[in-house]
Amino acid sequence: MPRESEIISAIRRRAERSQRVRIGIGDDAAVTKLPSGSELLACCDLMVEDVHFCFDWTTPRLLGRKALAVNLSDIAAMGGVPAFAMSSVALSDKCDMKFITELFDGMLEEANHHGVAIIGGDTSRSLGSIFIDVSVIGHCAEGKAVTRSGAKPGDSIFVSGCLGEAALGLRLLQLGVRLDELDDEPIMQSALLKHLSPAPRTELGKALGESGMVNAMIDISDGLSVDLAHIAEESSCSAVIHSDAIPVVQILQHLRLELDIPDVVDFAVGSGEEYELLFTVAPANAYKISSIAEKVGVPITRIGEIGEGKGVQIEDDGVLSPLPASGYEHLI
Amino acid sequence: MPRESEIISAIRRRAERSQRVRIGIGDDAAVTKLPSGSELLACCDLMVEDVHFCFDWTTPRLLGRKALAVNLSDIAAMGGVPAFAMSSVALSDKCDMKFITELFDGMLEEANHHGVAIIGGDTSRSLGSIFIDVSVIGHCAEGKAVTRSGAKPGDSIFVSGCLGEAALGLRLLQLGVRLDELDDEPIMQSALLKHLSPAPRTELGKALGESGMVNAMIDISDGLSVDLAHIAEESSCSAVIHSDAIPVVQILQHLRLELDIPDVVDFAVGSGEEYELLFTVAPANAYKISSIAEKVGVPITRIGEIGEGKGVQIEDDGVLSPLPASGYEHLI
Repeated sequence: MPRESEIISAIRRRAERSQRVRIGIGDDAAVTKLPSGSELLACCDLMVEDVHFCFDWTTPRLLGRKALAVNLSDIAAMGGVPAFAMSSVALSDKCDMKFITELFDGMLEEANHHGVAIIGGDTSRSLGSIFIDVSVIGHCAEGKAVTRSGAKPGDSIFVSGCLGEAALGLRLLQLGVRLDELDDEPIMQSALLKHLSPAPRTELGKALGESGMVNAMIDISDGLSVDLAHIAEESSCSAVIHSDAIPVVQILQHLRLELDIPDVVDFAVGSGEEYELLFTVAPANAYKISSIAEKVGVPITRIGEIGEGKGVQIEDDGVLSPLPASGYEHLI
Repeated sequence: MPRESEIISAIRRRAERSQRVRIGIGDDAAVTKLPSGSELLACCDLMVEDVHFCFDWTTPRLLGRKALAVNLSDIAAMGGVPAFAMSSVALSDKCDMKFITELFDGMLEEANHHGVAIIGGDTSRSLGSIFIDVSVIGHCAEGKAVTRSGAKPGDSIFVSGCLGEAALGLRLLQLGVRLDELDDEPIMQSALLKHLSPAPRTELGKALGESGMVNAMIDISDGLSVDLAHIAEESSCSAVIHSDAIPVVQILQHLRLELDIPDVVDFAVGSGEEYELLFTVAPANAYKISSIAEKVGVPITRIGEIGEGKGVQIEDDGVLSPLPASGYEHLI
């Protein structure tokens, strides 16, 4: 493993220096500025080797992308704009300079793609697993942050994108399918990448936040069933979703027999690490929200309604049943 | 190890809820506000079991305090005010709820003591060592951040407190001295605590930053010799310190034979993890700076001067010699 000073110099050279980053990597702390009148958003997310990822499945570059992406998704889920990131990485003896360069290349690629500047971090030796903790600072207009707790009875529930692909990617990886074997299989490749390098919905999150029309929002990290239960609980409401409205990724239908998936909707609502946005809107605003999403170029689907009381139910052929919170399990 | 949701609930209940924290722990991201017109300061610091600490030496409570304290010291070194903290913790199977409660108790104690609100974090399982990454967000008036790179030839060099105690504490721990055996030995206890639970100079850092009179500043984490070299290098200057001006902690004189320390000044300038502030000031402002420090109640000492050229030298009995950058080594 290279010395800390070598790692810092390598990253420092390539990290953004711009007007908004007054002091970046290399001093005791970074110095930046938020737009005036804005509120600060902050989150962090820790990824541990053999708990959240394993190197048999991914590459340092994809890992770097994902470590940042999951945080960008959290800022999107508040309706905010991500601006700055810091990453603390504990590296084991197996990490040479090539590994470290690729890891930070991935992080920098993801950062540049979403207009985020990497402003600091820390590195350490690890005696065992690799640990990556990324924190992101973003902003939103004052009072415009969208929480989990603002859903109101009568609200329509929307979700972005299609569900099921991330869990499918994970299942394929568990069955031994690897990214480098899939050059001619773009659909399978897409499923693996949804798990290994999710695309956070930053543009949509920002647009929804700015609209001021979203009452509650969360990103789907634990699975629709679990994350909708979070919204319902924090908002002191109930929720119903409709089985035939759930946008299930198409490939699931093709592979369901082969992969022994009894029910694709069950599979899709339990699929974690989707990093799609799940949000509620007053019915009167549903049309406007759809046109905002269309402008951003992200499909959204109305999947249900918020009600009085508590609990989450799924309606299938007119029959309501409780939706078990079948959450995402980490690798171990 | 308890479930993540249990850990989060336990911390969430005890973390500060105040006007300045609009949304704290429990949503996708925290929402806060910085004073208007201020610049944002951000830093993070990673601590790894058996690299930065070991449980044979410390307690979960002291570890929690230190994990936050080292970050507060970084904000102080920018002349800023720490405001918010997030902590990501990877816990091993040996961590029960008592351990976790004590760890966060320590972190909360330190946070409350310095007026900092804990606004978020993440927890994970670790298959081996414990990892703690804390990030802190602070602020300073626009353009007032004190960097490492502003030292000017002619500046006086000052350091806060006394040096050598942290390295002494580490040496005593390495020799098998333990905190719980030192009830009647307050001086030895103080040395161990300087290593295990350093007190960041937040009040002094803030006052120095507000004064607008400090040209460059750093906190001593790697040792005076290494950290002064950082200031000299980043400022494209040289530095000379005077051997007889270095404020060496008194106990070093008493223990130096017993501990086989050939030169107490050498030992003090190489002592890492002191978390004292090292800064430079135009000579015309030296008196004012001393009175600011006096008001805050922290002793400061003028130890040398910044010059043209490069390199760091130490003057002893009129003889100048290069000051080797004898940095702090982590446990392994």
